[in-house]
Amino acid sequence: MDEKIPVAILGATGAVGQRFIQLLVDHPWFEIVALVGSDRSAGQKYRDLKWVLDSDPPPHIGKMTVLDPEPGLPGKIAFSALPSEVAKIVEPKFAKAGYAVCSNASTFRETVNIPLLIPEINADHVSMIEKQRRVNRWPGLIVTSPNCTTTGLAMTLQPLHQVFGVKQVFVTTLQAISGAGYPGVSFMDIYDNLIPFIPGEEEKIQSETCLLLGKMVADERIPAEIGISVQVNRVPVSDGHTISIAVKFERTPTVEEAIRVLANYRGLQSTNNLPSAPKNPILVRKETDRPQPRRDRNANNGMSVTVGRIRKCPLLDLRMVSVVHNTMRGAASGSILNAELLVANGFVG
Amino acid sequence: MDEKIPVAILGATGAVGQRFIQLLVDHPWFEIVALVGSDRSAGQKYRDLKWVLDSDPPPHIGKMTVLDPEPGLPGKIAFSALPSEVAKIVEPKFAKAGYAVCSNASTFRETVNIPLLIPEINADHVSMIEKQRRVNRWPGLIVTSPNCTTTGLAMTLQPLHQVFGVKQVFVTTLQAISGAGYPGVSFMDIYDNLIPFIPGEEEKIQSETCLLLGKMVADERIPAEIGISVQVNRVPVSDGHTISIAVKFERTPTVEEAIRVLANYRGLQSTNNLPSAPKNPILVRKETDRPQPRRDRNANNGMSVTVGRIRKCPLLDLRMVSVVHNTMRGAASGSILNAELLVANGFVG
Amino acid sequence: MDEKIPVAILGATGAVGQRFIQLLVDHPWFEIVALVGSDRSAGQKYRDLKWVLDSDPPPHIGKMTVLDPEPGLPGKIAFSALPSEVAKIVEPKFAKAGYAVCSNASTFRETVNIPLLIPEINADHVSMIEKQRRVNRWPGLIVTSPNCTTTGLAMTLQPLHQVFGVKQVFVTTLQAISGAGYPGVSFMDIYDNLIPFIPGEEEKIQSETCLLLGKMVADERIPAEIGISVQVNRVPVSDGHTISIAVKFERTPTVEEAIRVLANYRGLQSTNNLPSAPKNPILVRKETDRPQPRRDRNANNGMSVTVGRIRKCPLLDLRMVSVVHNTMRGAASGSILNAELLVANGFVG
Amino acid sequence: MDEKIPVAILGATGAVGQRFIQLLVDHPWFEIVALVGSDRSAGQKYRDLKWVLDSDPPPHIGKMTVLDPEPGLPGKIAFSALPSEVAKIVEPKFAKAGYAVCSNASTFRETVNIPLLIPEINADHVSMIEKQRRVNRWPGLIVTSPNCTTTGLAMTLQPLHQVFGVKQVFVTTLQAISGAGYPGVSFMDIYDNLIPFIPGEEEKIQSETCLLLGKMVADERIPAEIGISVQVNRVPVSDGHTISIAVKFERTPTVEEAIRVLANYRGLQSTNNLPSAPKNPILVRKETDRPQPRRDRNANNGMSVTVGRIRKCPLLDLRMVSVVHNTMRGAASGSILNAELLVANGFVG
Repeated sequence: MDEKIPVAILGATGAVGQRFIQLLVDHPWFEIVALVGSDRSAGQKYRDLKWVLDSDPPPHIGKMTVLDPEPGLPGKIAFSALPSEVAKIVEPKFAKAGYAVCSNASTFRETVNIPLLIPEINADHVSMIEKQRRVNRWPGLIVTSPNCTTTGLAMTLQPLHQVFGVKQVFVTTLQAISGAGYPGVSFMDIYDNLIPFIPGEEEKIQSETCLLLGKMVADERIPAEIGISVQVNRVPVSDGHTISIAVKFERTPTVEEAIRVLANYRGLQSTNNLPSAPKNPILVRKETDRPQPRRDRNANNGMSVTVGRIRKCPLLDLRMVSVVHNTMRGAASGSILNAELLVANGFVG
Repeated sequence: MDEKIPVAILGATGAVGQRFIQLLVDHPWFEIVALVGSDRSAGQKYRDLKWVLDSDPPPHIGKMTVLDPEPGLPGKIAFSALPSEVAKIVEPKFAKAGYAVCSNASTFRETVNIPLLIPEINADHVSMIEKQRRVNRWPGLIVTSPNCTTTGLAMTLQPLHQVFGVKQVFVTTLQAISGAGYPGVSFMDIYDNLIPFIPGEEEKIQSETCLLLGKMVADERIPAEIGISVQVNRVPVSDGHTISIAVKFERTPTVEEAIRVLANYRGLQSTNNLPSAPKNPILVRKETDRPQPRRDRNANNGMSVTVGRIRKCPLLDLRMVSVVHNTMRGAASGSILNAELLVANGFVG
Repeated sequence: MDEKIPVAILGATGAVGQRFIQLLVDHPWFEIVALVGSDRSAGQKYRDLKWVLDSDPPPHIGKMTVLDPEPGLPGKIAFSALPSEVAKIVEPKFAKAGYAVCSNASTFRETVNIPLLIPEINADHVSMIEKQRRVNRWPGLIVTSPNCTTTGLAMTLQPLHQVFGVKQVFVTTLQAISGAGYPGVSFMDIYDNLIPFIPGEEEKIQSETCLLLGKMVADERIPAEIGISVQVNRVPVSDGHTISIAVKFERTPTVEEAIRVLANYRGLQSTNNLPSAPKNPILVRKETDRPQPRRDRNANNGMSVTVGRIRKCPLLDLRMVSVVHNTMRGAASGSILNAELLVANGFVG
Repeated sequence: MDEKIPVAILGATGAVGQRFIQLLVDHPWFEIVALVGSDRSAGQKYRDLKWVLDSDPPPHIGKMTVLDPEPGLPGKIAFSALPSEVAKIVEPKFAKAGYAVCSNASTFRETVNIPLLIPEINADHVSMIEKQRRVNRWPGLIVTSPNCTTTGLAMTLQPLHQVFGVKQVFVTTLQAISGAGYPGVSFMDIYDNLIPFIPGEEEKIQSETCLLLGKMVADERIPAEIGISVQVNRVPVSDGHTISIAVKFERTPTVEEAIRVLANYRGLQSTNNLPSAPKNPILVRKETDRPQPRRDRNANNGMSVTVGRIRKCPLLDLRMVSVVHNTMRGAASGSILNAELLVANGFVG
């Protein structure tokens, strides 16, 4: 790539927006040209706003002025870390103005003709973009990345689903605090405690997982028919969602077969050379006490899901535990991988 | 009761032993007359040993000298907080010497003729004691209290089991650090982290729950036939185990029926007047974000189990979440309630 | 006291307001008759507002309706947990309407004629109330309780000051999160971290300490002339401020003399029989690793300050460490003790 | 350097030993050729021992067999993370066998003729090595790195000492848990708590700081004459010691002068090109709420000390706060920088 592709970040001042900045600063294909904020932040220098991640924002980013969320900005791709109500209005405006919007918001994840993507497992869902453009008369487009927990669950299930057919899934999650954004959860609520509820989360995990594992028939997405029961929990861990999973299959694998399928999984071949794609989307650990969020969340720059404790389930077929980095693979990095997929497939230009 | 019953504490220097002391100091029926330690601690004043709970040991306890684990001590009841390998040798010695041993160790929980007790739900299991004494030629006896997590699970299930018949249970636990004793878990292992494994725990929860919900036929205990699948997790919470539960019943209750049965549960009538028995063994909370370990573990002095998030399960019948105080109801207080049951039934004296 | 004195709580819905409720529910002298909130909460049932402390609000409190901050409410005493800008307007209104306002706000702590009180150490400062009433033409009055950290510092210094004369004090604090109220500090800011700054705190500790240790000459308060250097830190502890102190005296005591003076301190005799006054305002611990916030904050219901590590300082005279419960002695309980002092001195009628 | 210098790690299985491995794996000058453990670990494959850091040990290290602490091993430099009693015996044995021992143990830090080094501030102290070798008849040598907190303190003071002359220092520390090694501090002791004591720590900080800031006269080290008063605290933070400092100088600088001196400090020129030396040994932050351990500990790979809150002190001259990464600069990385200094000065060969 001779010249980098100019990109804008929508919602650049929040926690996920800052992750986008961190990850895009040295990206081989993309170059940040616009930071878009809200009425409150627009007009300010980026360095004068609160930086909530560790270390500091890159100096040249700090000097940029935060812009209003109005199209007409430079950039071909718009990464969106907008709140869902704002995304509803702003993202279509940018698609209409010609941007490829790679959204991390939940707004359009379940909307017809808008792909919900984890490239390794369903890159072919981009085929619905053509109809999206036609129907909406957009020169640009919108693609979405799933809920952070859904990402870890769907990546764990898809390799097994292809081979053995997933029928039922029992899920209990132990989710990190960063998933609630900033300031998010008060120390006074979560210290020496956990909270067995996150609004809307259980529903999203159920429906998004079926969309992700669904099949394209012509340009129509047919969701997978999987029964999913979910209980979520917020736990005092900063980053890294842990997912306890039990699965019933069409054809019951042995523990060894399941391990082999997961450990050998490389994702759809078309995505193997994308810059952010990890060599192994799934890492299998065999120690009895892994995966653990602090020790495993950063595997392959936070892009791999680590699976362990794979064993027989007394009720369904198998139990296992997955850890996914919720703000990397499960948020900003996931959207960046989506953008790379769009570029590789000629949707940006 | 004119005079208090003299009691000994075996394993008096560990974390659970210290809880026994805290709870027995003002007990209306019992009076501590002996603190029994290991070779390492025997001979020392109690106040010279490390006290790991908050506040201080009661002054008159601090003056007592720690004794060797040899029968011949004063006392009619021996509360045991011994490690399981030590319990294997010491507890039968004390039963042989005439003590009613109320054990918190796992050693004899699944042994034939030794009751595993949660008085409210299976006080009738004491009927196996007669055979225990006969077979072993013990003037004393041994009763055991279950694993801390099992306690919370069995108390949640039993009211429902009686009415609707429990067939299958999916369990994922989020267990507090104090369950690992002292020094237990290193800060370096658990800070900003969780560990999806506790050795032997999943097996204990499966087998002990079936024993607790079992029925006495003549003087034989017939375990309940319930399929149980368990995934445990250690989380950075000090006290209070949280249990995510999904249940399939013989006869499916509505959510309202289940709530009514749990909220109205009072336990076996014969236990209602025991000093440590809470009025409501089960508390039902209807807020969407409860129960929480820090906010609910101390309900009724840590003796009630709090259940919330009772709702339909897309796969089985119902999902719910329980919190139990693992070192109170799930350990020391549970054994004290067992001792009260023995006294009320004439087994001590 | 035949009948309880009716009291109102201003700012009843915040974290300190809730502590007032917890502490006043069973108070021997006082009875809550009004809960006063802000525009946002007024008109609602108290039980429908978020309760941030552990356990639940007392049921009869839950049924009360939150009122507007307008005088004309029932009650003779008004406990104020108002934000300082609001206190500025509301507290004088209540004093004018005849209430004895016992304020926890910082607004009037350093105002002439308004006592800043820790009864055990400066109960005689109430003598400025007469002039306060005269000047302002208030039938009621305002008294204030100091900043939470100042409370622990002043209580530690006063016994020594009386005997040896404090000249210089070096202070470094390690302050609990609850001091920032609710929601207060975000988990994302403080997990695995500490923050070496709290706005305005260092200044308050310097000036308030000198006022508290000051002397009444006629009805004028002459602040103590003590040089104080403070560095504050917010640390990930829920309750209990730890204060590292080094002191230079007019007359250098030995370590043993200092321990004796602190351990024998009983506070001004006139306060000894107030219901909330602890027998020992100061507890001295001799273990090398005490005081610790979690283990010592609740000493005497959170009303005693625990002092330890008393030793020679290579630069000044002595070093020591104090722990004070910041939301009990350092906030709500402190104001209640002030109210008891007012009643005992005939200021409430 | 054509060929890498072979190095051994003594105490390779502990927390600091593992940091040595992490840091040396890609070192431009050094190559690990021997991992030395205790009787307990010797003979095992390194990968079969518990790895306590995040991520995994490098695979080729995992395959190495842990050796007995006997000289005769390959390697020219021995990095020591030994416990101090073991270091006392083993380190001289290795020096006698020709190794340059770069020790992190406290054993010989205050021993005559053995340099205590932070290269940027006192690289010239290596001049005492000649005498060390002569007196002990060692073909090898021993150099030591200071206590982790001392490192942060001495690096903060030295630039100011050179220009303004440090006379008195008041120190209160807030130290991370990793400083206690592994398993170190129990979660049950430190959760929601802090501990105002670490055995021996206050004494070390006082004496080592004077040695580090001392001057070489001929081949004799003359300690700096600085009065130091220290209070240490262990706080629930994983890595990164925070040090609250107040200083009195010979010649009082303004705040701006102090900031300028610290910000411009580059350390002794002879050390500027060592591979592990940061460009700025000191970073000055001007935000009111910095430095913070989690946000600042990793500055320049954990090799820079971050100083903030520089301001007038009401009693001495200036107050400030420093953060140092205790297991990087304050332990393993510090010893590696010492080794680089020895190589650059021709002591290894």
